Amino acid sequence: MRERAIGAYVDGRLTVEPAAKGKLSGLKFAVKDVFSVRGHTSGAGNPDWLRTHHPAPRHAEAVRRLLENGATLAGITHTDELMYSLNGENDHYGTPVNPKAPDRIPGGSSSGSAVAVAEGSADFALGTDTGGSVRVPASYCGVFGFRPTHGAVPADGVIPLAESFDTVGWMARSADLLRSVGEVLLGGKAGAGGEPAPAADGAAVPARLRVLLPKESWACAPEASREALRAALDACRLEGMRLEPVTLTESGLADWVDAFRVLQGWEIWKNHGAWISEVRPKFGPDIAARFRWAASLTDADRAAAARRREEIRAKLDALLAGDTLIAQPTTPSSAPLRGMAGEKLEALRSRTLMLCCIAGLGGLPQVTLPLAETGGAPVGLSFIARRGMDLPLLAWAAEMTERFRIREERAGDAHVFKI
Amino acid sequence: MRERAIGAYVDGRLTVEPAAKGKLSGLKFAVKDVFSVRGHTSGAGNPDWLRTHHPAPRHAEAVRRLLENGATLAGITHTDELMYSLNGENDHYGTPVNPKAPDRIPGGSSSGSAVAVAEGSADFALGTDTGGSVRVPASYCGVFGFRPTHGAVPADGVIPLAESFDTVGWMARSADLLRSVGEVLLGGKAGAGGEPAPAADGAAVPARLRVLLPKESWACAPEASREALRAALDACRLEGMRLEPVTLTESGLADWVDAFRVLQGWEIWKNHGAWISEVRPKFGPDIAARFRWAASLTDADRAAAARRREEIRAKLDALLAGDTLIAQPTTPSSAPLRGMAGEKLEALRSRTLMLCCIAGLGGLPQVTLPLAETGGAPVGLSFIARRGMDLPLLAWAAEMTERFRIREERAGDAHVFKI
Repeated sequence: MRERAIGAYVDGRLTVEPAAKGKLSGLKFAVKDVFSVRGHTSGAGNPDWLRTHHPAPRHAEAVRRLLENGATLAGITHTDELMYSLNGENDHYGTPVNPKAPDRIPGGSSSGSAVAVAEGSADFALGTDTGGSVRVPASYCGVFGFRPTHGAVPADGVIPLAESFDTVGWMARSADLLRSVGEVLLGGKAGAGGEPAPAADGAAVPARLRVLLPKESWACAPEASREALRAALDACRLEGMRLEPVTLTESGLADWVDAFRVLQGWEIWKNHGAWISEVRPKFGPDIAARFRWAASLTDADRAAAARRREEIRAKLDALLAGDTLIAQPTTPSSAPLRGMAGEKLEALRSRTLMLCCIAGLGGLPQVTLPLAETGGAPVGLSFIARRGMDLPLLAWAAEMTERFRIREERAGDAHVFKI
Repeated sequence: MRERAIGAYVDGRLTVEPAAKGKLSGLKFAVKDVFSVRGHTSGAGNPDWLRTHHPAPRHAEAVRRLLENGATLAGITHTDELMYSLNGENDHYGTPVNPKAPDRIPGGSSSGSAVAVAEGSADFALGTDTGGSVRVPASYCGVFGFRPTHGAVPADGVIPLAESFDTVGWMARSADLLRSVGEVLLGGKAGAGGEPAPAADGAAVPARLRVLLPKESWACAPEASREALRAALDACRLEGMRLEPVTLTESGLADWVDAFRVLQGWEIWKNHGAWISEVRPKFGPDIAARFRWAASLTDADRAAAARRREEIRAKLDALLAGDTLIAQPTTPSSAPLRGMAGEKLEALRSRTLMLCCIAGLGGLPQVTLPLAETGGAPVGLSFIARRGMDLPLLAWAAEMTERFRIREERAGDAHVFKI
């Protein structure tokens, strides 16, 4: 039953009306089944979790902010088990159908949220992103997606995975809406980097915006997807944007992924090891193997990985000083076919983590734009900024998308842009 | 909130494994939220119904047959309120997104079942069809759909609407699968007409198969849809099929619809009037108005309509004697845009009922095939047979679909046929 296709929602009857009028009035949103919704028991994609937990006494802070600003909660969406996958294939419940490519996986772990936006049953949706769980499904399902600066949106009322990476992210059907949701969720506050919030007019594009193209990131993508994404990047270039190839690391991104995996795994076991040991939940085979590995990590493993993370953060902070972005593929390519397993699955996971771990290790905001296709399926183009630059990054993304749309229309080549 | 878009499922976590292996092994099905599933409370598309009913002690007979023949239950789907609409716009929960035409309604009342099949999250789905509730959403969502001979599939464990019309119908992603499901659900038994079950080889196409084209039915469709459907009919013609225009009624189909509406309304109030009077449920405005009208019907109204039905049945029985089918549009055209209201909605409902009431009043089996498009959205072509001819009709539909596919491929015009 591992390849069973399902819809976006675990609960399609649970709706919550807005608490007040606001800038999101008239819009509906879906939330991943890890956000507290008053009276609903979050399932975290696992039947044993559902069975051993209670209904939430109040809404998660992010849900509360959206309801207070006029949005309507339209349902609770499927997630991978305990958010510990990037595929969206849940061994217990099935695989939400990717509306842009029904024979391919939707990506995960915020699988149902991406599908809800892609199919149009929600205008936008909340997910969580620890190692790519918003960015990957947004790329595979052809929607706009955002991972904020670490700590910039409160995670109160959200089931944790690995706190030093966990973020509350979101997807939307347009870049403008992605930005509007950001204005509500970020609440005008600075990111964890402690920098002051950019002024409202901080959205103006700087006269000289440097865009770095990491050689390692672009090497993760096969040629067809590299070319499609590079063409999209050219089509969305703003005035004064300079593209510069750059080398991120002499040792390779695989080394960065190792640090990420160890820190993530150690924190996951700290959070959920006691529950797993007590309840002995039934997990799908891939997830079970990951938890066994997480259980084996030592404090010394963690300490070494934490030192490595500090070096990487310093490197990224230096690269992203001033008006600088990184541009790269969100995922190596468009979504793979359903039911991939074994070595092939692990190889794809490793290459995907190479791309996703950069913002993760750096605590950086990243936006993914559905501007390219390979093999008839969507693949996202990403921009990463320094910490705290969430709102300017969302504003620039909206401008770049508009530029892209105008150029595509002029070229009569609008088939790429299906949003 | 009346135009809120939602997914196909009210419960996307409830799954039931098959009870045995069988001809449907490996296939998954969804069921409308009016079929008993052990431990689940059917909601019938209304929150007050859900609140005032209890979990089912056992599966509906149709669900049981599918599970016994190897199929897996993949979830419970949305329905219009108390099945009393053909649109799929539920005032409480929203409108399931039609994957073939996201800005248009999915049709109802078996809205979620049609969407589940169209999006691919189910291979086939159960619905109920009293006045068109399987045929209409199948036409609008571009899937294969079947309404059996009245009484041919037991309705035990299904919330009734109007028993003298109620049928258990189904949708599928292919004509072959529609037929396989029929072989399980019909169980080799005759329809209510009491005729013996056709032999397994009863599926062979007769040397001379007459196909009647009722002038009144084809006049219900605007020119564009009439032409698209007529082209589809020509493309799926089998050897020896003779097409013959025919007049069904001197008084017009509106007169048939009147008889249908009165009989249906009288039975609905008999079934649900006591509950409505006691609970005073909140209904959407269209549904509420229909129930108020149903409450006003007298026994004399019913008796006159029942006499009219007998005349119509005799007429249809005479027309369909021998190896004869009726071919007509399933719906006047492809699905209208969401949010239609008032006069326009009522006018469409009347024209749709003109097409649907023929099989309804006659107790006849009808199959709808997604072989045409107008305005970029699907519209179904229907064939109606005499009572008890369910399995031959399903076999001929599969052959005609195959013929259609071959001709489209030869013509290089395969874009119409997206199944």
